[in-house]
Amino acid sequence: MTASVISRFSVPRLEEMPDDVRARILKVQEKSGFIPNVFLVLAHRPEEFRAFMAYHDTLMDKSGGLSKAEREMIVVATSAANQCQYCVIAHGAILRVRAKNPLVADQIAVNYRKADITPRQKAMLDFAMKVALHSPTVGDDDFADMRRQGFTDEDIWDIAAIAAFFALSNRMANVTGMRPNDEFYKLGR
Amino acid sequence: MTASVISRFSVPRLEEMPDDVRARILKVQEKSGFIPNVFLVLAHRPEEFRAFMAYHDTLMDKSGGLSKAEREMIVVATSAANQCQYCVIAHGAILRVRAKNPLVADQIAVNYRKADITPRQKAMLDFAMKVALHSPTVGDDDFADMRRQGFTDEDIWDIAAIAAFFALSNRMANVTGMRPNDEFYKLGR
Amino acid sequence: MTASVISRFSVPRLEEMPDDVRARILKVQEKSGFIPNVFLVLAHRPEEFRAFMAYHDTLMDKSGGLSKAEREMIVVATSAANQCQYCVIAHGAILRVRAKNPLVADQIAVNYRKADITPRQKAMLDFAMKVALHSPTVGDDDFADMRRQGFTDEDIWDIAAIAAFFALSNRMANVTGMRPNDEFYKLGR
Amino acid sequence: MTASVISRFSVPRLEEMPDDVRARILKVQEKSGFIPNVFLVLAHRPEEFRAFMAYHDTLMDKSGGLSKAEREMIVVATSAANQCQYCVIAHGAILRVRAKNPLVADQIAVNYRKADITPRQKAMLDFAMKVALHSPTVGDDDFADMRRQGFTDEDIWDIAAIAAFFALSNRMANVTGMRPNDEFYKLGR
Amino acid sequence: MTASVISRFSVPRLEEMPDDVRARILKVQEKSGFIPNVFLVLAHRPEEFRAFMAYHDTLMDKSGGLSKAEREMIVVATSAANQCQYCVIAHGAILRVRAKNPLVADQIAVNYRKADITPRQKAMLDFAMKVALHSPTVGDDDFADMRRQGFTDEDIWDIAAIAAFFALSNRMANVTGMRPNDEFYKLGR
Amino acid sequence: MTASVISRFSVPRLEEMPDDVRARILKVQEKSGFIPNVFLVLAHRPEEFRAFMAYHDTLMDKSGGLSKAEREMIVVATSAANQCQYCVIAHGAILRVRAKNPLVADQIAVNYRKADITPRQKAMLDFAMKVALHSPTVGDDDFADMRRQGFTDEDIWDIAAIAAFFALSNRMANVTGMRPNDEFYKLGR
Repeated sequence: MTASVISRFSVPRLEEMPDDVRARILKVQEKSGFIPNVFLVLAHRPEEFRAFMAYHDTLMDKSGGLSKAEREMIVVATSAANQCQYCVIAHGAILRVRAKNPLVADQIAVNYRKADITPRQKAMLDFAMKVALHSPTVGDDDFADMRRQGFTDEDIWDIAAIAAFFALSNRMANVTGMRPNDEFYKLGR
Repeated sequence: MTASVISRFSVPRLEEMPDDVRARILKVQEKSGFIPNVFLVLAHRPEEFRAFMAYHDTLMDKSGGLSKAEREMIVVATSAANQCQYCVIAHGAILRVRAKNPLVADQIAVNYRKADITPRQKAMLDFAMKVALHSPTVGDDDFADMRRQGFTDEDIWDIAAIAAFFALSNRMANVTGMRPNDEFYKLGR
Repeated sequence: MTASVISRFSVPRLEEMPDDVRARILKVQEKSGFIPNVFLVLAHRPEEFRAFMAYHDTLMDKSGGLSKAEREMIVVATSAANQCQYCVIAHGAILRVRAKNPLVADQIAVNYRKADITPRQKAMLDFAMKVALHSPTVGDDDFADMRRQGFTDEDIWDIAAIAAFFALSNRMANVTGMRPNDEFYKLGR
Repeated sequence: MTASVISRFSVPRLEEMPDDVRARILKVQEKSGFIPNVFLVLAHRPEEFRAFMAYHDTLMDKSGGLSKAEREMIVVATSAANQCQYCVIAHGAILRVRAKNPLVADQIAVNYRKADITPRQKAMLDFAMKVALHSPTVGDDDFADMRRQGFTDEDIWDIAAIAAFFALSNRMANVTGMRPNDEFYKLGR
Repeated sequence: MTASVISRFSVPRLEEMPDDVRARILKVQEKSGFIPNVFLVLAHRPEEFRAFMAYHDTLMDKSGGLSKAEREMIVVATSAANQCQYCVIAHGAILRVRAKNPLVADQIAVNYRKADITPRQKAMLDFAMKVALHSPTVGDDDFADMRRQGFTDEDIWDIAAIAAFFALSNRMANVTGMRPNDEFYKLGR
Repeated sequence: MTASVISRFSVPRLEEMPDDVRARILKVQEKSGFIPNVFLVLAHRPEEFRAFMAYHDTLMDKSGGLSKAEREMIVVATSAANQCQYCVIAHGAILRVRAKNPLVADQIAVNYRKADITPRQKAMLDFAMKVALHSPTVGDDDFADMRRQGFTDEDIWDIAAIAAFFALSNRMANVTGMRPNDEFYKLGR
């Protein structure tokens, strides 16, 4: 597989990358056993790579009102709506691993309304989809509904921010033609 | 005006903010004469604030194939499609200033196809709108079209990344109910 | 500026127009200090000009349950949905003047749901937008909702008729490529 | 059948109407053998009635590049897209009569692309539908296409103006709940 | 009229057809006085013809909670949404005959919300349209609503299955360019 | 797992089914090692079951211009557009098996435009999606395009008929809440 296969743009070799970018990539490679292509594709622009990863990590790698699996559910549902191949396949794998559930990622990707999730998770995804697809209509009523479901304002910000961040991420993946690594398809099944 | 007016979430006072966040805000206040509300609203989450501003600055404050005014055109056109009040009004002002043109921001906000812009700028906005609204259909043909218009691959990445970044930004502004400062309405007219 | 700049169709000179058309235009010029381009563009067809202006005046220049500023709000909101550059910019100016509010027109043009308007005005615009965009689904329930908000049947007709008239007007402006006069951009700010 | 059946608004009796409105209505009754409900429903507001009828007549009752049957084709196609029961059924009848063709109105109402019409008429309806449904995207290319099909600029204005006028008419009929007269269903079959 | 007029595909002559297909067609011709074109067009593929007709008959020719006229209402409403000329015109005729009502088919075809039907029939069509156009969002709430309207689960299956079967039928008619027989236009008026 | 888990409607036990329905089901169970839920859910109505399976088999189990894997590609792409969980997951599995490719089904489900398929297969799916989503606009130009790609008229009918049949199938699965068997998720990976 050549670099051009994973992106419409040039992809730097590891030795060409700034030290911090390369270090971050080697770390994920050590942990996962392979380098997810998003790291290589976005390394085309080191400054944007750093901001993207910082934003991603602060939203996805934290504890709080939402579990890590729930955060991945938001990614899979909204990325499916945006038809983002990389995000659905890569984050579907992560969701299977984090939820310890081999079915839920595919269910959410096709139609989250019929997935094996709790009513609270369904409400979370309804709101995330509204943010992803109809954000100008989000209003005080939506906040009231979410609070009634037991979500705090910090949870609501988390859901909105994850949907918003992957609005960015999906568009970058769709434009670059970012290819999901073959490893993701089987992970966690 | 109280903090609650500019966001559905709590807004920290300057003295409550981490030093780097406050420093950044004081700097923009010194330059602009007022604090654009996006800084205050996003300071609710310092980590996300830092990533957001780093991403923004690397895309918007640089030279290259696209002028700074052209970068703002992309913001205004895609934010209007996402009905983002803060972004259209604040970046409309910045566009008027950068383009030294009091009319073009309103023209682009309502219908960029009929704005007083060059055919190349029209092609730039056609592509930006496709990224904003129909990114799953972006294909090799679009790249070929853009290159035929004289855009380099780095220009194409810039256009896509700005549209993608404001896909995030518009959603955060719409969900937080971010209010544009009164100062923006008249700026550059 | 030549005639061809303001319309895709030929624009008659004042001296070529029928007397009543010219008289009407001179009167508006006297009052406004300039001739809004809609008058010149539509004078291409005097019969249609007369019907258009008669329809416009009976809907917009009257008192009743809706204030003149509220009538202009309907124009700005629905014309923004139809991306009509002339109507948003020209009637945005008139709205600023009539509402004595320099902010509300831009707010409504971008997203009326977040404008500084009363709940009653918000309900008025919700209904106007339904007429503009989804009129086949208007039903008895909508009438009941509007009456509950305190609107009379004559108010409901007014709102619907203004949205309907500007459905016509927006389409004519979009097809003719009607250009807003430069004067409108700054008016009432 | 009572007045309330044909409109959600009150319908004046003939003797309550201004003389010119009543005279116009009696004339159409004499010609058609019945009073089309649009006259009664819109007589609720005599000023708007006059402007509506003047606009209608100048567009529909004239000769020129488009035949009267072709003008009615535009009405039927765009009114079907707007799901306007009154306009499709009443103008469908008029189209059958004017085209001396008992099939074409139903064909156009369901899917004009498959109607028994000429390629030129198909191009006319393609443009009319763009005006009715996507007017912000009408551009110089559309004018060039239409001229290539042999349409003059006056023909293009006619097509656009008819589509625009029925954008108004369809919305008024949908909001008032204007009921087509039973007589229209069989006319011209 | 030649075979090619009624379909984009070749249409077999009666004597070329398998015996059972021809027998079925001769039976409908005897009953109706003409051969509805759907039989000829689909006879291009005898196996599919047999499955299509078996499916059609088990759904449409039975008694139960829904009358035969109500079944045709579902066909007309959903086929109009799919702009299927053959289905709207042919089943519109059948609906007029079965409902003994010369007006209701055209009313439903243009806008079923404003047709002369009962509230129960309106609820039936609301659900059928949701199946036709937005089936991924059908949920338990829809079932609860329908039961509240007095529909049994078997009625709900019937409504859904008819809407689903004509989703197939409309697409085959649209692709083949299936032409409605002239006889249908006047039937039952 | 109880019957109610796989459908919103009652599901007959094998011994309650008509002999031919049960025989068909036992045969598929023998071949696959489990009973795909579509057989159990549709056995609720034996007549419709028979027509459905006959239609399915004649379209999917045949040789010709399209390979069996290509037929399944059409199912997966159009079912994903209709958000049909059962069809995407079950036929995704069949596609992996028939194409001997563990990646292509997920790729097509998320965004067929970016799947590892040939240009001819991409053209096939473009046409299938047009049939699934915009069939009223299918015209002679589409046939000309397809022929230029090397498809025969019989191939075009096959593609259209498969897209049309799954328009039915997707709607039945969405309304019944048909649950994909757990076995499908891993098959062919």
